[in-house]
Amino acid sequence: MWCFEIRLRGKAGHADIRGMESKGYWRMRRRATTLAAENFEFVPAACRAPGNGELRVRTRFIALDPYLSRPMRGWSGEVPGWQDGTIHGRVIAEVVESRAPGFAPGDTVFGVGRWQDEQCVAAANFEKVSETIDPPSLRLGVLGASGITGWVGLRLAAPKPGETLLVSAATGPVGSVVGQLARAQGLHVIGIAGGADKCRHAVDRLGFAHCLDHREPDLAARIAGAAPGGVDILFENVGGASLDAGLAAMARHGRILLCGLAAHYRDDAPLALRHFKQLLYAALTLRGFITAEHPELHAPALEALRQGVASGTLLYDETLIDGLENAPAAYLDMLGGGGVGKRIIRL
Amino acid sequence: MWCFEIRLRGKAGHADIRGMESKGYWRMRRRATTLAAENFEFVPAACRAPGNGELRVRTRFIALDPYLSRPMRGWSGEVPGWQDGTIHGRVIAEVVESRAPGFAPGDTVFGVGRWQDEQCVAAANFEKVSETIDPPSLRLGVLGASGITGWVGLRLAAPKPGETLLVSAATGPVGSVVGQLARAQGLHVIGIAGGADKCRHAVDRLGFAHCLDHREPDLAARIAGAAPGGVDILFENVGGASLDAGLAAMARHGRILLCGLAAHYRDDAPLALRHFKQLLYAALTLRGFITAEHPELHAPALEALRQGVASGTLLYDETLIDGLENAPAAYLDMLGGGGVGKRIIRL
Repeated sequence: MWCFEIRLRGKAGHADIRGMESKGYWRMRRRATTLAAENFEFVPAACRAPGNGELRVRTRFIALDPYLSRPMRGWSGEVPGWQDGTIHGRVIAEVVESRAPGFAPGDTVFGVGRWQDEQCVAAANFEKVSETIDPPSLRLGVLGASGITGWVGLRLAAPKPGETLLVSAATGPVGSVVGQLARAQGLHVIGIAGGADKCRHAVDRLGFAHCLDHREPDLAARIAGAAPGGVDILFENVGGASLDAGLAAMARHGRILLCGLAAHYRDDAPLALRHFKQLLYAALTLRGFITAEHPELHAPALEALRQGVASGTLLYDETLIDGLENAPAAYLDMLGGGGVGKRIIRL
Repeated sequence: MWCFEIRLRGKAGHADIRGMESKGYWRMRRRATTLAAENFEFVPAACRAPGNGELRVRTRFIALDPYLSRPMRGWSGEVPGWQDGTIHGRVIAEVVESRAPGFAPGDTVFGVGRWQDEQCVAAANFEKVSETIDPPSLRLGVLGASGITGWVGLRLAAPKPGETLLVSAATGPVGSVVGQLARAQGLHVIGIAGGADKCRHAVDRLGFAHCLDHREPDLAARIAGAAPGGVDILFENVGGASLDAGLAAMARHGRILLCGLAAHYRDDAPLALRHFKQLLYAALTLRGFITAEHPELHAPALEALRQGVASGTLLYDETLIDGLENAPAAYLDMLGGGGVGKRIIRL
């Protein structure tokens, strides 16, 4: 694994952390138009004894997943557990006490739980993490939803050797998998990332042919320079300037797999694209893609990812941020592009 | 045919029409960021005698086609005839003198020519209009590119009986065909149009189930009201507010056929969409569609359209504007939504 310095832009901001010395969990203070640190609130809570079918667990890793932004800003009673704004996300934990069959103290488990240090959870929402996943945090990244999303998404884009693929958030947990797999399949891979360090990382470590810094000017022209025949596949994780520049550089009949719009999760401001008309002029196809809608591909994806990681042909990164108290600031930093690979809170 | 009053928003504006009493043609004065009346210039020109392989023709009808906006603003030497900005568009004309085999004086011909009253043209760019197309102006609309675009586009959208289809520019030459064909195929058809008159026209004359005025507030909510199960197919001709509202109302896995972006042809301002994220959240597919890329479907389309028009099951409209001098203002008015059906200059 490769280490990348993370500089949090402000700690938990205005969040109330008076309770941080005791145990507790994070919830959203109110529904918010724009996601900001002051929307997060720490609620002191001690773990009661587990009921029937429950586990008491000590949380070890919390995934900073972009998809959480949506319920964070405007949760509804329909999302389980979020009724009062309590954040429920993907976590890795260690079982301390079990009142459910099949689980014993010491087991490492994965599931959807609160952003909480110690918690009682329904065993039905958790599964044991295979010992072959080591460290277990990989279950949150390359050997979990992020890796599977990259593998399945690339497959749906039907890549052909010799084609040019452009992927945004190139050093993120999805983009890095997409780029490496595409290169192994004989594609010309161009990444987009924020900053020179990340771009070097994508080229030197992940083996991308090019990586372009979206913070520098003339992104569309630089993509065109790296893709003289145009971009056949745009694997979009971000939106914003990278999507706009990508549109301008698409080859005729190019395909866009819309996997994420990380630049737009913090609020609902209109998404403005100067080159939207390229969708028409170049007869492009754009497909919105939700990994959960392709369950039949999850097992083959995971098997392929496991083999890649085991053989060292598929590299991955994690950015670990210590401390539950840093979760809100780290989450916002992740949305803004901080860190490489999977961004994870370590307790 | 149904008559619709057209109010030109200003005549030829600042265009130089001093030459209008003599014969001549329209060209673009300069490349322009925003298409406006003052960009058009009338050039006096008498028709020379036709050369070998040429015809001297008297222009009868000029199609006001949205696709012309692009070369009008930024023509290049690559588009035939546009080297000096001279507008070349689709016209119907009568042969006055022929120096090409297969053409004789009195023939009605269709082809790409100048916006000019009398002109010498290469016969290779023209074809005779079948006498079964009556009036011959239909060759510019329902029995030409517009009708074919509607027929082919709807087919590519793979409609199924019982699905809900939303089409913008509902009373335009493409939208009106799409809506009528879809209704005949058992779809629930909702139109979007500008103004109450057009909406009544779409429902009362064209048989749409609903037509919603995009100038009134809360368009997305009104679409949702007319499409309780969501929109399965969005046939997009306009962009802007109608596309944005349509995105918000799409059913899961809905399909968007992007056929035109008429609201955005006048300039290259960024296209801002509040509901762009629905492409991801609802796993939508969007496809940019160029009729010319599906030549194998043109003949079956034309045959089906002919039968529909002949049997009276497919209604069409034309908005005829008299006088070559009105062409620029009428063109800009068309882009702004003026008129119904095919908008045509009659000389």
